[in-house]
Amino acid sequence: MPRSLLIQSRSHPYQVECKKTFEEAIYSISDPEKAFFLVDAAIARLHGLLLAQIAPLERTLEIDPTESQKSFEALTPIFLDLLQRGLKRDSHIVVIGGGVLQDIGCFIASVLSRGLRWELVPTTLLAQADSCIGSKSSINIGPYKNQVGTFYPPHRVLLSTSVLASLPEDEIRSGLGEIIKLQLIAGEAHFQELMTDLATHAPYDSDFLEKWVLRSLEVKLPFIEKDEFDTGIRNILNYGHTFGHAYESATHYEIPHGIAVILGILTATHLSVRLGLVGAQHYAGLKGVLKKWHDPFGERLKAIPIDSILNAIKRDKKNTANSLHCILTRGAGRMEKLPVRLEDHLIPAISTFLTDELK
Amino acid sequence: MPRSLLIQSRSHPYQVECKKTFEEAIYSISDPEKAFFLVDAAIARLHGLLLAQIAPLERTLEIDPTESQKSFEALTPIFLDLLQRGLKRDSHIVVIGGGVLQDIGCFIASVLSRGLRWELVPTTLLAQADSCIGSKSSINIGPYKNQVGTFYPPHRVLLSTSVLASLPEDEIRSGLGEIIKLQLIAGEAHFQELMTDLATHAPYDSDFLEKWVLRSLEVKLPFIEKDEFDTGIRNILNYGHTFGHAYESATHYEIPHGIAVILGILTATHLSVRLGLVGAQHYAGLKGVLKKWHDPFGERLKAIPIDSILNAIKRDKKNTANSLHCILTRGAGRMEKLPVRLEDHLIPAISTFLTDELK
Repeated sequence: MPRSLLIQSRSHPYQVECKKTFEEAIYSISDPEKAFFLVDAAIARLHGLLLAQIAPLERTLEIDPTESQKSFEALTPIFLDLLQRGLKRDSHIVVIGGGVLQDIGCFIASVLSRGLRWELVPTTLLAQADSCIGSKSSINIGPYKNQVGTFYPPHRVLLSTSVLASLPEDEIRSGLGEIIKLQLIAGEAHFQELMTDLATHAPYDSDFLEKWVLRSLEVKLPFIEKDEFDTGIRNILNYGHTFGHAYESATHYEIPHGIAVILGILTATHLSVRLGLVGAQHYAGLKGVLKKWHDPFGERLKAIPIDSILNAIKRDKKNTANSLHCILTRGAGRMEKLPVRLEDHLIPAISTFLTDELK
Repeated sequence: MPRSLLIQSRSHPYQVECKKTFEEAIYSISDPEKAFFLVDAAIARLHGLLLAQIAPLERTLEIDPTESQKSFEALTPIFLDLLQRGLKRDSHIVVIGGGVLQDIGCFIASVLSRGLRWELVPTTLLAQADSCIGSKSSINIGPYKNQVGTFYPPHRVLLSTSVLASLPEDEIRSGLGEIIKLQLIAGEAHFQELMTDLATHAPYDSDFLEKWVLRSLEVKLPFIEKDEFDTGIRNILNYGHTFGHAYESATHYEIPHGIAVILGILTATHLSVRLGLVGAQHYAGLKGVLKKWHDPFGERLKAIPIDSILNAIKRDKKNTANSLHCILTRGAGRMEKLPVRLEDHLIPAISTFLTDELK
């Protein structure tokens, strides 16, 4: 399998390059002498000596990957810090971290001087297998989550799955959630191959991870190239997300994102069965194989009042004032965006899912 | 002359439509029931009854067109206000005002839900004849001017020169500064026709203004279509701006923008003569005809220490660390971007311009 991907976007084409080691990824960064580095604080602690080789302290900002850091209000001191340290319009930005760092770095790079060059070294499985391509940044403002953002892909993505060895297990499972989603979108054969590989490999095996990172990016690629601005076919990638986002929000983000997506996939599939779109055996199969990837977070979900989940769904920005569109499924590889009536279908489906299906 | 222009951009094509009256422009706004209105506070006072016909108070924000309003820090309450008032991803934004309102509205529309539809009703001559096309927004942050921004044109521009009747004379002269710049870029015949028209019309004549608004946008159009992101040929439109920006900054924005541009054009032409690029008679001609359009601001400039002007030039974001590029001229229609040595050429030229040429 080729270890790089070239992606077209409205702003500029960009390449994802897989490197054998994290060292190799770091040493591949372009023109480090012109770069300002935004680094996940935990990565900076773990890999300080390596980073010091190319990222001098005076051009390095360490950032905690929290939801409050990813807010419009928290961006001002980062902008000012970069400008005070001498960032110019021919400088570029290097982001080393996961999704939160990527959101912050992408937004900053897209609006400083109306667009600076930036490179991304993703350090979580979620970022490597999913968010590193697709151009999006999402920033919170006040109580509103992800309402501010831009489309501005990095100019290069340098990734190495070897850096994932230091992640906690829930982070790996969270990344696998998006990998599972993308392979279900790819079709039954892809999903079954993933399940087989998962049964026969340790989840930290870096070759196994590299294979499925690349396979997942390959599934995502045509959707984002055809519909970069997410107004049509790219919506399919939200499979599991309407419910997943609501579960995250209603539990105050105690459930890692990708694990919430797994629970969201199960909910969407359960709803699809109830609507007659897909047979019950498809749902039963998924429910059986996915349980070990969401336990025990699914259990915790049962304690959440359904109203707080419904309120979170209604707040979701993907819903226009009068209709609720969900990505439903007719089977692996056959997802569709369809309107769902709240009282007749959506509420009963979530209720039975939470009470009967998470045992 | 056609009273509309269609402009291609990387995000979406858009149209400038000239309307006979301000009323007609306002009533042409698309889907006002889905719009949130950002309105220059002075326009809201002058045209309150008209605006109330389509812009209900609960979806209208009045904004003072000041530099401090145009700052990243001041955007947060505007975002929150719009979201609290119920703005959704299928809402759109209507901006009614001049350059500052346009910058704020463009930035907000470009990053809310990663891009909302927006329409612009420009109400200053500067905005009508120049800034309403070209996609750019510029936002200040801390002490750094215009360092944050996006490329995101409106989806429609609805303009009427009849609204300009209430502008103070300096605002009209400021708009004429950019019109003069664009007609000089267009060539000698265009510039001479403008000078003739200027000599025979009252500057508030709305037909005269509409003619030159459209002619100016037509000059600007090929530059922004060929080089929307301002990395090449579009730089030519900065003719007069390196010096103009410095004059604005060094006088703490006492000189209106377009009038500073006129003074910048004269400085760039004076420098071009000293470098042997153009004959002294071209400069002498401009100096004679442009004096009445910059008086008495040129006079005031003589009191400013040259060091504060040089510092402002060095801070200008268009200069990379080691070279100073200026748009110079070989005559009307023949502008070029060239590097200029600071000590040998630039400083002596500004010095003699300020001491000898503003009498």
